[in-house]
Amino acid sequence: MRKRFLMTPGPTPVPPEAAVEEAKPIIHHRTKEFRDIFSTVMEDIKIPFKTKNEVYIFASSGTGAMEGAVANTLSRGDKAICIMAGKFGERWGEICRAFGVEVVPIQLEWGETCEPDLLSDTLKKNPDVKAVFTTLCETSTGTLFKIKEFGEIVKEKEDTILVVDAISGLCADNIEVDAWHVDICVAASQKGIMLPPGLAFFSISEKAWRLVEKSDLPKYYFDFKAYKKAFEKQGDTPYTPAVSLIRALRKSLDIIKEEGIDNVLRRHALMAEATRRAIKALGFELLSKYPANTCTAIKYKDGMTDDFRKHLLNKYGVQVAGGQSHLKGKIFRIAHLGYMEKPDVIYTIAAIEMALHDLGMPVEFGKGVVEAEKILKDL
Amino acid sequence: MRKRFLMTPGPTPVPPEAAVEEAKPIIHHRTKEFRDIFSTVMEDIKIPFKTKNEVYIFASSGTGAMEGAVANTLSRGDKAICIMAGKFGERWGEICRAFGVEVVPIQLEWGETCEPDLLSDTLKKNPDVKAVFTTLCETSTGTLFKIKEFGEIVKEKEDTILVVDAISGLCADNIEVDAWHVDICVAASQKGIMLPPGLAFFSISEKAWRLVEKSDLPKYYFDFKAYKKAFEKQGDTPYTPAVSLIRALRKSLDIIKEEGIDNVLRRHALMAEATRRAIKALGFELLSKYPANTCTAIKYKDGMTDDFRKHLLNKYGVQVAGGQSHLKGKIFRIAHLGYMEKPDVIYTIAAIEMALHDLGMPVEFGKGVVEAEKILKDL
Repeated sequence: MRKRFLMTPGPTPVPPEAAVEEAKPIIHHRTKEFRDIFSTVMEDIKIPFKTKNEVYIFASSGTGAMEGAVANTLSRGDKAICIMAGKFGERWGEICRAFGVEVVPIQLEWGETCEPDLLSDTLKKNPDVKAVFTTLCETSTGTLFKIKEFGEIVKEKEDTILVVDAISGLCADNIEVDAWHVDICVAASQKGIMLPPGLAFFSISEKAWRLVEKSDLPKYYFDFKAYKKAFEKQGDTPYTPAVSLIRALRKSLDIIKEEGIDNVLRRHALMAEATRRAIKALGFELLSKYPANTCTAIKYKDGMTDDFRKHLLNKYGVQVAGGQSHLKGKIFRIAHLGYMEKPDVIYTIAAIEMALHDLGMPVEFGKGVVEAEKILKDL
Repeated sequence: MRKRFLMTPGPTPVPPEAAVEEAKPIIHHRTKEFRDIFSTVMEDIKIPFKTKNEVYIFASSGTGAMEGAVANTLSRGDKAICIMAGKFGERWGEICRAFGVEVVPIQLEWGETCEPDLLSDTLKKNPDVKAVFTTLCETSTGTLFKIKEFGEIVKEKEDTILVVDAISGLCADNIEVDAWHVDICVAASQKGIMLPPGLAFFSISEKAWRLVEKSDLPKYYFDFKAYKKAFEKQGDTPYTPAVSLIRALRKSLDIIKEEGIDNVLRRHALMAEATRRAIKALGFELLSKYPANTCTAIKYKDGMTDDFRKHLLNKYGVQVAGGQSHLKGKIFRIAHLGYMEKPDVIYTIAAIEMALHDLGMPVEFGKGVVEAEKILKDL
């Protein structure tokens, strides 16, 4: 017997109460039964976004909603700032280019965050920019971006919107869509929402809707207006929704409501702080200069390879993520995200201590766990 | 207690053996464990398509793969024939127009099929057409289209592809992708594949790949080349796949393999024939001039309204679909599709007889069931 701990930044573990919803007999989506579920979900999904506006739901991965944010608000030849300091920031640039949008890059080292002044200066130099695309938590580096400050800057521009990829960050790193003037916020099911992958979400402001009216980029499946119309007219979606995941979503949102979104965020903050302190006590260095509460990216010590991750999984059942692109083999990433709390963090740190010992690295048993306990006793 | 019979053309009932797969603890998709499942699925999904080429999988509804077929093969200003004789044929036209493709419509009455000569003539008059978009079973009318004959016509043109929406028809109405020269065949999970909605599929021929190389329409999430590359290079998908549905897919494909695809098709043919004969014996008229084996569209008799469907559901637990667009309130549609066999058809016909009686329509109990039994005894 080996218990498994999926400590990756998506997919994350699914609470059994939500998982069993998926296995229930399927129902038709053009029925009162489904629409009742859907209307509850459409109300409650606003909670993690902290918005009063609608949040729409696609049957797709998060990347689908990222594409939607580009294709629905911009026109061919428009300029957009993409803040790129990791794999997912760079994805904004790729999508923009695929759609013929001119990218004004804010290119940073992987692991850095973007200072608000840099965004402000870039906007001043490029006053005709229509959108700023950025990330709440850059999953590839475990770095937080300063969305609140970005919002203060972008809100001053009448025809420029702030678009945030909160796919991994939602529920783990605070984002206040309305209060922070985020025009479009994109998320997905398999992270803090605690479901399998297959649903993408986006919130949208009045300001963003004005850009939608002017946009000439082609779209169909991800056409924002079609989702708005279908929900307003018939209380469902223009194309067949992922019924079993929507039902599971109702359950996972119930769990989030019961805990309270600010308690959810506090839990993530404490798990992240416990992880960071424990990892540092074990002599590791963080990759990120401004670490997020979603996941922690940790540099391997000299002499360590990705065999460490394999050993951690095979002997201790703990699955952490590796590095992406040029960071492959150089870092590992521990998520503290979604359906996780004290036992997940404590055991992960203990497993890392034991794995270090197994691989002949110097380690003092309990040194990381002690630091984690100091923090997690308050959770 | 009331047992439910979901006799709609998607979503269709999910076999419990597949449904429980969805509820299993989630696994990460960049692992050997997932890739082993995925490679099995990628091999077995070719079976219902009857193709040796790869069939790729999106996390989306079927419409996503329809958009992909347009955006990946055509360029702005290209011309395409769209055969439109129902809601889903018309969707091809909508997608083409959304992407700036000029539509050469073959517009027919809802319920008609397209004679091969009409396609042949239209192609001759429009020799510069790059693609012909059509439907295997037009779900809104229960009509079959003559894909084999279309394939014979389109294969003669070096730079024109045949694209078939087999979303509702796959596994119920025969399609032989390779033998019939179908260049792109699109399908989805919630029909003959017997899963919840959330997965879309497409097969693609060498000829279609040549058009992909020339296409300049924007795409990202549905970029065919990205899926090909990810599968070839790393054995998975470019964006997070719908892990729980993929696992359920392995199980439903096992069920299809065990029955054998030609037995699956025969079962659907017999269920459809039994339904048509029974319905006619009860004095109904079919809408379609060329009925498919996927679902049967039936005209209401004089004096009947959609209350009939409500009564059928509330008292007898049988859910059939209504008409779409201008056929709303004029027809009802019984699917015989996916995880259904003798009991589903027999009980549905019996329930229709009883419901007719309840609503004061003249009916002879058993008159439809007798006809169904004559056919279904051979299944």
